[in-house]
Amino acid sequence: MNTFGTRLKFTSFGESHGVAVGCVIDGMPAGVKFDEEFLQNELDKRKGGNQFSTPRKESDKAQVLSGVFERYTTGHPIAIVVFNENARSKDYDNFKDVFRPAHADFTYFHKYGLRDYRGGGRSSARESVARVAGGAVCAMLLNEFDICVQSGVFGVGRLKSNLNEDQFDFKWAQESEIFCLDSSLENDFKAEILNAKKSKDSVGAAVFTRVTGMMKGFGEVLYDKLDSKLAHALMGINAVKAVEIGEGINASKMYGSQNNDILKDNKFLSNHSGGILGGISNGEDLVLKTYFKPTPSIFREQESMDKFGNNVKLELKGRHDPCVGIRGSVVVNAMVRLVLADCLLLNASSNLNNLKKIYSLK
Amino acid sequence: MNTFGTRLKFTSFGESHGVAVGCVIDGMPAGVKFDEEFLQNELDKRKGGNQFSTPRKESDKAQVLSGVFERYTTGHPIAIVVFNENARSKDYDNFKDVFRPAHADFTYFHKYGLRDYRGGGRSSARESVARVAGGAVCAMLLNEFDICVQSGVFGVGRLKSNLNEDQFDFKWAQESEIFCLDSSLENDFKAEILNAKKSKDSVGAAVFTRVTGMMKGFGEVLYDKLDSKLAHALMGINAVKAVEIGEGINASKMYGSQNNDILKDNKFLSNHSGGILGGISNGEDLVLKTYFKPTPSIFREQESMDKFGNNVKLELKGRHDPCVGIRGSVVVNAMVRLVLADCLLLNASSNLNNLKKIYSLK
Amino acid sequence: MNTFGTRLKFTSFGESHGVAVGCVIDGMPAGVKFDEEFLQNELDKRKGGNQFSTPRKESDKAQVLSGVFERYTTGHPIAIVVFNENARSKDYDNFKDVFRPAHADFTYFHKYGLRDYRGGGRSSARESVARVAGGAVCAMLLNEFDICVQSGVFGVGRLKSNLNEDQFDFKWAQESEIFCLDSSLENDFKAEILNAKKSKDSVGAAVFTRVTGMMKGFGEVLYDKLDSKLAHALMGINAVKAVEIGEGINASKMYGSQNNDILKDNKFLSNHSGGILGGISNGEDLVLKTYFKPTPSIFREQESMDKFGNNVKLELKGRHDPCVGIRGSVVVNAMVRLVLADCLLLNASSNLNNLKKIYSLK
Amino acid sequence: MNTFGTRLKFTSFGESHGVAVGCVIDGMPAGVKFDEEFLQNELDKRKGGNQFSTPRKESDKAQVLSGVFERYTTGHPIAIVVFNENARSKDYDNFKDVFRPAHADFTYFHKYGLRDYRGGGRSSARESVARVAGGAVCAMLLNEFDICVQSGVFGVGRLKSNLNEDQFDFKWAQESEIFCLDSSLENDFKAEILNAKKSKDSVGAAVFTRVTGMMKGFGEVLYDKLDSKLAHALMGINAVKAVEIGEGINASKMYGSQNNDILKDNKFLSNHSGGILGGISNGEDLVLKTYFKPTPSIFREQESMDKFGNNVKLELKGRHDPCVGIRGSVVVNAMVRLVLADCLLLNASSNLNNLKKIYSLK
Repeated sequence: MNTFGTRLKFTSFGESHGVAVGCVIDGMPAGVKFDEEFLQNELDKRKGGNQFSTPRKESDKAQVLSGVFERYTTGHPIAIVVFNENARSKDYDNFKDVFRPAHADFTYFHKYGLRDYRGGGRSSARESVARVAGGAVCAMLLNEFDICVQSGVFGVGRLKSNLNEDQFDFKWAQESEIFCLDSSLENDFKAEILNAKKSKDSVGAAVFTRVTGMMKGFGEVLYDKLDSKLAHALMGINAVKAVEIGEGINASKMYGSQNNDILKDNKFLSNHSGGILGGISNGEDLVLKTYFKPTPSIFREQESMDKFGNNVKLELKGRHDPCVGIRGSVVVNAMVRLVLADCLLLNASSNLNNLKKIYSLK
Repeated sequence: MNTFGTRLKFTSFGESHGVAVGCVIDGMPAGVKFDEEFLQNELDKRKGGNQFSTPRKESDKAQVLSGVFERYTTGHPIAIVVFNENARSKDYDNFKDVFRPAHADFTYFHKYGLRDYRGGGRSSARESVARVAGGAVCAMLLNEFDICVQSGVFGVGRLKSNLNEDQFDFKWAQESEIFCLDSSLENDFKAEILNAKKSKDSVGAAVFTRVTGMMKGFGEVLYDKLDSKLAHALMGINAVKAVEIGEGINASKMYGSQNNDILKDNKFLSNHSGGILGGISNGEDLVLKTYFKPTPSIFREQESMDKFGNNVKLELKGRHDPCVGIRGSVVVNAMVRLVLADCLLLNASSNLNNLKKIYSLK
Repeated sequence: MNTFGTRLKFTSFGESHGVAVGCVIDGMPAGVKFDEEFLQNELDKRKGGNQFSTPRKESDKAQVLSGVFERYTTGHPIAIVVFNENARSKDYDNFKDVFRPAHADFTYFHKYGLRDYRGGGRSSARESVARVAGGAVCAMLLNEFDICVQSGVFGVGRLKSNLNEDQFDFKWAQESEIFCLDSSLENDFKAEILNAKKSKDSVGAAVFTRVTGMMKGFGEVLYDKLDSKLAHALMGINAVKAVEIGEGINASKMYGSQNNDILKDNKFLSNHSGGILGGISNGEDLVLKTYFKPTPSIFREQESMDKFGNNVKLELKGRHDPCVGIRGSVVVNAMVRLVLADCLLLNASSNLNNLKKIYSLK
Repeated sequence: MNTFGTRLKFTSFGESHGVAVGCVIDGMPAGVKFDEEFLQNELDKRKGGNQFSTPRKESDKAQVLSGVFERYTTGHPIAIVVFNENARSKDYDNFKDVFRPAHADFTYFHKYGLRDYRGGGRSSARESVARVAGGAVCAMLLNEFDICVQSGVFGVGRLKSNLNEDQFDFKWAQESEIFCLDSSLENDFKAEILNAKKSKDSVGAAVFTRVTGMMKGFGEVLYDKLDSKLAHALMGINAVKAVEIGEGINASKMYGSQNNDILKDNKFLSNHSGGILGGISNGEDLVLKTYFKPTPSIFREQESMDKFGNNVKLELKGRHDPCVGIRGSVVVNAMVRLVLADCLLLNASSNLNNLKKIYSLK
């Protein structure tokens, strides 16, 4: 339920206005160099702290409770906790019985019979602190194999980059306050976000991800296919409503003779597949697109209901991103890392030769 | 790996040209009326047998090996097997060392070191016999709660229905040889498929799914969200490259004030969310779109490589669907049923009141 | 529920008087030589067919439905089915509403609300056909690493071998009709069983298992410890009521200075631990004891109740082992093999060095 | 690996001399009254603090990080952390390269290639803080259904209570510093422990557990049988070497006519089975015995090896229980609670009637 992964199990906990959020990463092999500074940097990336993200200020300082000894992983569960500091629960007192539109309030209430209404409780995007921490730890493992996951934003609302995917600029995105992949649209994207914010509204966004350094063989047939796992991971991020792999929807409009990637001279001549054939990585770059709906929390007056069945009008308080997809791109990145680390471990026992290499040499 | 689901575990086995394909469904509650005729009908739907699907002729007769007693489920694993009858493995003798373009041949070889080359072996769409059988059994459970899953085709290649989603005609689709949701496009869709077939090519397709009779509370936070599980299920179907829930990609282009579904007088005034809030069903219809790439097997000469590293030219034999998305719509339906049955069971222990109802009355 | 194992998933299905019993083994690495003859031999060992076991005559012919290609495993699920031939369901007509003493009838009825009463249905020891098949497949993998699991009987009722464990004679046991580990007691054990049978009674038994060729590192901390997994596997066998590892109960009577195994000159000077330290194999032989209660089915008149709440007297029919522990020793063997194969696969990703060996050489 | 349970997932983390130990309990239904005081009491019970347990002084103050809101569980993961305060890692500096006899040092080193040598790291009994916290939370759920788990000590070394199991005195045990079930042996048990301690030695112990208020239907066939899950849980506790259910080993010495529990007038006339038939609870008390080896850490000079292959002599420092089974009885209790809470949830979806009760009334 709150655990993700098969061989590398990532479990998260914590509520938006509770004591802390955190995670336990179980199954990480022993002997991986643990880089606490990198972990903190990744959390800082997610933190935002500019006009394009939430005004909530958290130091988001990660504390590693276990699983690391003398700077190496021990093979035991790595628990990471981030204490909440800047929760302003009073913002929510007026809404404790009200279902905020497009939020989980309504469904949590009906499923559980009660709910922590402060900041959305468990359903808050604050939980993504845990995901990003988990992704960072996985990156430490992936680095050992030169697998690199990069993500950025290529669309905000109706604006969309016209660049060819190969031209997306991940270096630029790293420096951009909005992780923008197309420098020529940076200002337009920003204007669109600020415009929504100014009109007490929010706006959607589109995120592109590329993984380089992929090895062949990641993904298990049939219900742990790499694409299946990625879709699971990405669609489970708050506010995500669509996932495309490789050509995505466009593939459904093509003929086989156009879409088939030809293999010649030991190279694929194209990558319509996005790096996955039959659910297993073919060594080409992974190519993924993830689409975020606009942040549900907007500051206009909206109609809704309360838990007693009364119609109400509400004007939200609280502190929210005007475009949840911006920081969402950091979460996308983390989830892809979690998937790939899991695949790397699972694949280790795919055939007898692999096993013989391990045990005979041991 | 070959098991799907958390509380209701569906495991499939079998290869395209092996002895049989089948599945084991574990976790089905006892006391569900088991309808063998319905099971067979569902398999027949998938079977095709017209000019829009594969010429391979299989009776696809399901044999129930266990888990049913005097026409009721017993709570024990239901094993279903379908023996292969019409395998023509010789079609593949020339391709045993060749990687067919856009197929799993290349990746399976690199992952496992060897592969059953006959008809794609485990990677064949023939495995979907098992999925459809599993979906049919789940439907028997869902029926008890009046939950109904319907799927059909709304796009073939560049052609796409302009109907509003509410106008899609599931009754028509049931009778249509290509499960077409828009009667006005039935002939155009057919022509597009036959055209691709005639040019020794294949074509993609788009599938729409609606679930009526949904209850509130299906889906577990955070990594077993209903949307996450659906995306996992659908992206794991052969040839699927994109999944949208509710507004899907369109949501990323909207403002919050447009996309938020307002709840008033105990009803949602719109369903942009596709029936899911915070990963949990809100009682509205589930709305899903699934996109299939064109069948990789085309009968033109193509370039590729063999496992020894030589470039080769190949002209495929074998029997293949010109548009894998058509019969794919039946598989989509089955996978959604598997997800929902799992959610129904998982949700049973979501809160103490549920448990008290069971145990106090027992 | 009906699946066993973490990385190697074994799922069984089938009822005593249903169509078939069988299993699906998922996660077996590709490239393992598949020996059908060995599989059949193992099933034959379990079959019994002498006066010390059930008079039910089944050919128990295994049919491999998937996962094997040209005599090697493919990495895909291996489905094995054994059709039931000699079910005499009429024996049970009189008992369909009666709870047979010490059987699962009572609990199945209360849990599921209905039950397949024919021969115990799913709770029958006939299900162990599937376990033995699964164990045989695992042995094919373990053989590649020279790991050998041997089991036999060292006690029947009040009779118990006085031999030192090192003196147990597995060669003798292989030939013995009752898998007896102590040739000097073979006749006494047999007499005890026949005596019980003659008095329309049954008798318990004690089974010893030794695994040679163990590698270090099997078992995962903390809840997949090797001893934990073994206890889970063995206590789940029908009629088992106790499990000991190494010194077992005797360890609770010792002082630390007696029980600690000293490591010197790269060897352990004793093996009180039974080959497991901290839940992980230390390379010494695994040593296990498993204790079976007497077969619940006895042919004397017994008192009991029916499902309507009436007291009844019953005299069982059906065909039953007078000492279920005899053939149980074959099942013990199979379960230990399933555990060890799982551990071998799980351990492959325990540390970074293992992973580097695989991927750098690939 | 570090997660226990199927529907109720308990994950623990932390090392003996690391920052903290803790756990995440996922799957607890919403609406259970959360009693922090009870939680702390249970941890205090485990803490020891008398001459029969370790001299290490920890406050063991539990901090609940998530999953509880206004004193009720929310249905979300409950994270509990206990910070380590009294770690004296210097005690271990001399042993960092040495394999302490009968400890996990040797196996951890071989499995992981490196290890946290301070106090045994992850393999330390200190991890049981997490287990006891988890068990306490489960007890809050079990209390709602009047299921009560009680454990105590009935043997120390060669001394063993001669009382009939029904005479074991759980009230006395609650007050006893050594959780002794037989008041007449309290002093003898204590003397035996202190005697071992005085001779720089340690001693084993035997623990009895009874569960009252059991409902029928707990346990899933076939590989999640109640007895199987209990054996898994108990054998996974540090130092446990044997588990008996009901008559245990004694059952193997009996005839069926003696061992079968007769059901008459809606009551079982005996409870040889220990409350489990066919892997499912029959409503009678659960009866379990768990056997602990003597604490491996003794303060005499012992021989052993270091990781470079040299023979060494060592005299341990550190702080250890002279009889690990005493406090182990608290851990046994906790693990049984974890198992039963899991079973309670799993059983909720065992049959259609259960599900209808939930959903129709909702």
